[in-house]
Amino acid sequence: MTTAPAPLADLDTEALRAAHAEFARAYDELKASGLALDITRGKPSAEQLDLSNDLLHLPDGAYRDAAGTDLRNYGGPNGLPELRAIFADALRVPVAQLLALGNSSLTVMHDTVAQALLHGVPGGELPWGHQSISFLCPVPGYDRHFTICERFGIRMIAVPMNDDGPDIATIETLLATDDSIKGMWCVPVYSNPSGAVYSEEVARALVSLPAAADFRLFWDNAYVVHHLSDERPEPIDILALAAEAGNPDRPLIFASTSKVTFPGAGVAFIGASEANIAWFQRNSAAQSIGPDKLNQLRHVQLLRDQDGLAAHMEKHRAILEPKFAAVDEAFRARLEPWGAGAWNAPHGGYFVSLDVLDGCAKRAVQLAKEAGIAVTPAGATFPYGEDPRDANIRIAPTFPPLAELRTALDGLCTAILLAETEALLAERN
Amino acid sequence: MTTAPAPLADLDTEALRAAHAEFARAYDELKASGLALDITRGKPSAEQLDLSNDLLHLPDGAYRDAAGTDLRNYGGPNGLPELRAIFADALRVPVAQLLALGNSSLTVMHDTVAQALLHGVPGGELPWGHQSISFLCPVPGYDRHFTICERFGIRMIAVPMNDDGPDIATIETLLATDDSIKGMWCVPVYSNPSGAVYSEEVARALVSLPAAADFRLFWDNAYVVHHLSDERPEPIDILALAAEAGNPDRPLIFASTSKVTFPGAGVAFIGASEANIAWFQRNSAAQSIGPDKLNQLRHVQLLRDQDGLAAHMEKHRAILEPKFAAVDEAFRARLEPWGAGAWNAPHGGYFVSLDVLDGCAKRAVQLAKEAGIAVTPAGATFPYGEDPRDANIRIAPTFPPLAELRTALDGLCTAILLAETEALLAERN
Repeated sequence: MTTAPAPLADLDTEALRAAHAEFARAYDELKASGLALDITRGKPSAEQLDLSNDLLHLPDGAYRDAAGTDLRNYGGPNGLPELRAIFADALRVPVAQLLALGNSSLTVMHDTVAQALLHGVPGGELPWGHQSISFLCPVPGYDRHFTICERFGIRMIAVPMNDDGPDIATIETLLATDDSIKGMWCVPVYSNPSGAVYSEEVARALVSLPAAADFRLFWDNAYVVHHLSDERPEPIDILALAAEAGNPDRPLIFASTSKVTFPGAGVAFIGASEANIAWFQRNSAAQSIGPDKLNQLRHVQLLRDQDGLAAHMEKHRAILEPKFAAVDEAFRARLEPWGAGAWNAPHGGYFVSLDVLDGCAKRAVQLAKEAGIAVTPAGATFPYGEDPRDANIRIAPTFPPLAELRTALDGLCTAILLAETEALLAERN
Repeated sequence: MTTAPAPLADLDTEALRAAHAEFARAYDELKASGLALDITRGKPSAEQLDLSNDLLHLPDGAYRDAAGTDLRNYGGPNGLPELRAIFADALRVPVAQLLALGNSSLTVMHDTVAQALLHGVPGGELPWGHQSISFLCPVPGYDRHFTICERFGIRMIAVPMNDDGPDIATIETLLATDDSIKGMWCVPVYSNPSGAVYSEEVARALVSLPAAADFRLFWDNAYVVHHLSDERPEPIDILALAAEAGNPDRPLIFASTSKVTFPGAGVAFIGASEANIAWFQRNSAAQSIGPDKLNQLRHVQLLRDQDGLAAHMEKHRAILEPKFAAVDEAFRARLEPWGAGAWNAPHGGYFVSLDVLDGCAKRAVQLAKEAGIAVTPAGATFPYGEDPRDANIRIAPTFPPLAELRTALDGLCTAILLAETEALLAERN
């Protein structure tokens, strides 16, 4: 007997039991099939990495920048102007205020927080570390942002995300009543994991709301060129908006080539006001005699200019679009008929955010894991790993080949349906 | 009339005036010759960089390590085991306790101090930043070490250097009477700039003397494979000595490929006890998803194994030995007859340390600069840039071609002799 799909919560107990039995049987088969699949992290696939394989023999004997400097030697702390020029337009930062650094924007964000703790930031009276401080954390959000706060003992305050960015009314109230708030994590374009794009209205509010002089937006523009459709957001010039609002030093813009070329050998960027960049340079003068400039030269040779960058990202899109479509298809086919989940179909970025029935995310992820399907731990998208509703699951569809992804998604759906029927039955007992 | 060379201080006033006139005339000629030479920094020459030009097309399509991992992607925070194995023997650190990281050991040292300030180190009760702390600084020493302390407000206590390392009696007294001392900068092999090599006796004392549980030796082994002669120091296994002395966590070992391959695109290393490495890994887990692993693969392919590393360093020696000989020759010819300076002829490393007459270093460097010869600012080898005797000048002979170096050294000698006769005459007025 097959149970006819209907929202699980609407089923009478007998039908729910039948559905549960069906999902349990499907789950047993899944487990018996001995899968070993991984959709935990936002990693590019091997096919995507192949797009940048020219880097593996570049710079092909060359070692000078356009100004004739020998890039093999010490120096050049700001990074190659040619590379900064390629990314300046997409990031809406003047080349002079955009620095190209070493591998990984995570490192630059971490180090910026560390320097703020030790030295304070322009406009602040004290180092952040001389007081108890807090960060605003739109949720669901990026677990590695939260790890930085946790490691440094920075209190995290969750803020709900809407379709156009974090909830401004909540932020306004928090900023007005809690002067320990010194920072806020923002992924303004194709948020991790909700895919939301901040509207200009939200961005304008974030740079305008009254806040401490040393309050900083950590504007992690990780996915600004990572489109999955032709529907593209108008780039937001956050530095100009901040200057207009009289708070030019509020945004710190971060980005990297991690998901453009090679995550294992990339270039990170920081952009900000002149005062913030001078502060960053003063800090890094004690830390480094310059980033890996040859790797920056490789990137200049590979990407050439901003059109080259755009063309390169179209190749990523061609690989990724079918994978994101597969997520949507799987959830439409398996979850929607049972009213078993709500998810987004993002226009870019690396994730799909799925909400299952409250209280079922952890159990579903555990069931999937026991069946050989590794999914980002439930709760990871919330500060301290604690999703108060236990509902959110982050789907990272980019890494596995399409066929494996489909198998993993189907198995995950089975795990979710089983977890949900278990929970609903338990409620009725 | 030419003044006959004799120690300047022994000349009668008339002879001194004649010598001064002679040096002043030579200096005017020097100035008129319009030089633009630079011996300020310990930079490898273009000829040395050429030794590693294979890196400019490596890894030549390859992107997997020996274990088959795709190095283009995220991960691998400890660095390539193959590369760590090449340096493990020279650094006397077991591969498991030696991490290969990104460009520049300066960054790793800086970040280690920052993490100690924010979190404390194993064995410590408080983060270093919760108290006023001090570092022991053997002098003359490396200015960038001192800059890290200065930037973080760490008090620096100068300690005299002997031929076999820093003065242990001074250190013993300081450690016994000042519990704010949490760190000490050490360049154990071919010290910057004195060229001194720490004896095993000194090393043993440094890991044995009673000190705070969170006292750390910053064992910057920057020049451990940078020999200039066949007379090579027996490598010191500082981790084993520290363990024997019951202080296994005291040394933190740093090194890099900056002066092995390319300073602008290198690999840094940290080695330490298991407890320290676990501490470092816990910190860097929040900071990075892994170093540039492709650059590490390039280095493995270039250097191959520890014999390959040794052979590569012999090529550097062949280029550098004549330059260090030129320094010795110039000072013997121009300074020695007048008793105008004392210097060392190091068996390795990147510097010669020259002591001129007390009170004359700043003036000599200034005169050289005005004649178009840039020398490391006098005082740079001391904490806060203050050489109490104003006597020490760091000579960095590696970067310029040999002919330019000879010209720069000759001009510098003229500037020194002029500064010294000026000073001696002023004393007699």
